[in-house]
Amino acid sequence: MEITFLGTGAGVPSKGRNVSAIALHLLQEENHIWLFDCGEATQHQILHTTIKPRKINKIFITHLHGDHIFGLPGLLSSRSFQGGEDTVTVYGPEGIKEFIKTALHVSKSHLNYPISIVEIKDGTIIDEDNFTIYVKELEHGIPSFGFRIVEKDAPGELLVEKLKAQGIPSGPLYGEIKKNEQVHTKEFGTLYRENFIGPDKKGKIITILGDTRYNQNFTTFIENSDLLIHEATFNAEQKDLAYRYFHSTIEQAAMLAKEGNVKHLIITHISSRYLEQDHDDLLKEARNIFPNTDLAMDFYHFKI
Amino acid sequence: MEITFLGTGAGVPSKGRNVSAIALHLLQEENHIWLFDCGEATQHQILHTTIKPRKINKIFITHLHGDHIFGLPGLLSSRSFQGGEDTVTVYGPEGIKEFIKTALHVSKSHLNYPISIVEIKDGTIIDEDNFTIYVKELEHGIPSFGFRIVEKDAPGELLVEKLKAQGIPSGPLYGEIKKNEQVHTKEFGTLYRENFIGPDKKGKIITILGDTRYNQNFTTFIENSDLLIHEATFNAEQKDLAYRYFHSTIEQAAMLAKEGNVKHLIITHISSRYLEQDHDDLLKEARNIFPNTDLAMDFYHFKI
Repeated sequence: MEITFLGTGAGVPSKGRNVSAIALHLLQEENHIWLFDCGEATQHQILHTTIKPRKINKIFITHLHGDHIFGLPGLLSSRSFQGGEDTVTVYGPEGIKEFIKTALHVSKSHLNYPISIVEIKDGTIIDEDNFTIYVKELEHGIPSFGFRIVEKDAPGELLVEKLKAQGIPSGPLYGEIKKNEQVHTKEFGTLYRENFIGPDKKGKIITILGDTRYNQNFTTFIENSDLLIHEATFNAEQKDLAYRYFHSTIEQAAMLAKEGNVKHLIITHISSRYLEQDHDDLLKEARNIFPNTDLAMDFYHFKI
Repeated sequence: MEITFLGTGAGVPSKGRNVSAIALHLLQEENHIWLFDCGEATQHQILHTTIKPRKINKIFITHLHGDHIFGLPGLLSSRSFQGGEDTVTVYGPEGIKEFIKTALHVSKSHLNYPISIVEIKDGTIIDEDNFTIYVKELEHGIPSFGFRIVEKDAPGELLVEKLKAQGIPSGPLYGEIKKNEQVHTKEFGTLYRENFIGPDKKGKIITILGDTRYNQNFTTFIENSDLLIHEATFNAEQKDLAYRYFHSTIEQAAMLAKEGNVKHLIITHISSRYLEQDHDDLLKEARNIFPNTDLAMDFYHFKI
C-alpha cells in the first residue's frame, strides 16, 4: 500500500498546508484508492499528484467539521467528468448523507456513477476479502471517529527453489500449485500446496484517527498498528488549549503511539501557527516519547 | 473600483484556472469587497492576493452549479477565524439558503458574524447610497442571473483654482463648501457650492453575467456598461455544443458586447480544453467583432 497526504493543516487552509485529506492506494488489490476525509480543495490537491479520481471507490469521513468535508461535493461532481463510473461508497457520521444529498441536489449535480452513503457507528463497517475495517468514536466536540484498517494475511510465496530442486519445471503447473490445495500430475504424482508455499504474508494494520482529545482508552483500538496517523493540533505547551478545543498535543499523540505499541506514528492536522522552522521542535517533543514519529507535509507520499 | 479574477475556468478546476469567482473592490466606499460567485477553493485563491476576507460584505451568486458555489461554506466559515465580524449578505437563486444553512448546520460551523441570505428574482435587489444593482435571469439549464451594478454619480471635484482666484484661502472652509449647499462667511459673504464644484463624476456601470446562452434580448440589460464580464465556455466552432449545454461562444459574447454598446468586454469561464497557446485565437475571434475584448486569467487584476 501507499499513502499520500493531501492536506495536513487544521481548521483553515494556509499556503503551506491544505485542510484534511489522506489517500490510501491499495496496490495489491484492484488498484483502488481510498480517501480519508475530504477538506475543501482536495480535488485541487489531487491535480498535483498521479491520483486518478475515478479510482477512488471509498471515502471515509472521520467527522463533519468543514475542514474535513467541504471538498466532498466538488470531488464527487468532478469525478463524473473524469471517467468515474464505478460506485463510490462514503462512510461518515450521521449527517453526512444530508450534507452530500443537499449539495448535489441544490447544485443539480448529476453523477455518472452510483453513490452509496453509509452512516457509521462503533463496530465493524467493512469485512471483505482483503480488509476488515473497524470504527471507534473518539473524543471531540462532535462525533469523531477513528478507522482501524486491517489487511488480511495473504498466502505466502511459491517456493520456486524447492520445486526446481524436486525437478518440477516452471510453467503453468506452478500457477496450478499456487491456486489449488492439491494438483494431480502424471509425472510427479500428487503435489500438495502446503509443501511448496512459504509462510503467510502478514497483513498491515493502519489506524487513522479523526480529531480527538488524548484518551488512554483508545490504546486497544490502535494497538500493534504498523502505522498510526494521529492529529496534533498543538504542541505540549498548549495542552490546556488542546483539551478545551477537543484536540491533542503532539506529545499526547506520541504517548498513545507508545502505549499502543505501534510501529510508526505520523502526525498530521498541524495548526497554521506552527511554521516550517517549528517542525524540528515539534518532532523532538514526539520523538522524546516515541522515536519513530514523522510529521506529515502536504504531498508527503510513502509506501507501507 | 478594482476587480480581481479569482477563478476563470469552467466546470472543474484545472492547474491553470480555478472555478468561478470575481472580487470587486469598492475603494471609494468603506473599502468593502463584493464577491461574484464562489467556486471551490476561492478562499485558497484569496490567500495569494491582498484581499482580506473580513472585508467581503456581499456575495452575489449567479447560479447554483457546483463550480459557482462549492467554495461558499469554507469561505464563510474561515471568515470567522479571519476577524470577520460584520454582516455578510449573500444574494443568489432560490436554493442558496438551503445549501448554505445545511452545510453550516451539518458541519456545526458557528459564524462570528450575522449572515443574511436573499433569494433573488428579476428586478432591483439593491438601491443604496452609492449603488443600484439590477438582476436579470439569463438562459441556462437552471436559473442563472446577471448583475448590473450601477454606481451612482458622485459630486464633482472642488474647483480649487477658482476658489484661490477669488482670494479664498485653503483650509477647513473648503471642506464646508464641498459639504453644504451654501456657506455664510464674514469675509467672503455667502458661498454657493454650485459655483465651486465641477461636473458630477459619472458612476461606472459593471455588468457581470452568469452562465448563459447568447440571447439578443439581453442587450438592454448590458447596454452602455463600462465593463461587461461574460462567459465564453467555447470557441465559435463549438457553437452547437455551446447551445446544447446552455453556454456561449466567445464570438457570441463579443456580439452581445457590440450590440449593447459596452466599453470593455472581459471573457471568463474558459473551458480547460483551451490551453494558453489557444488564447490568441480565442481573442482574435472576439476582437474581430468587438475590439476592446480581454481574456481573463486567474489573478488578473485591474482598475476601472
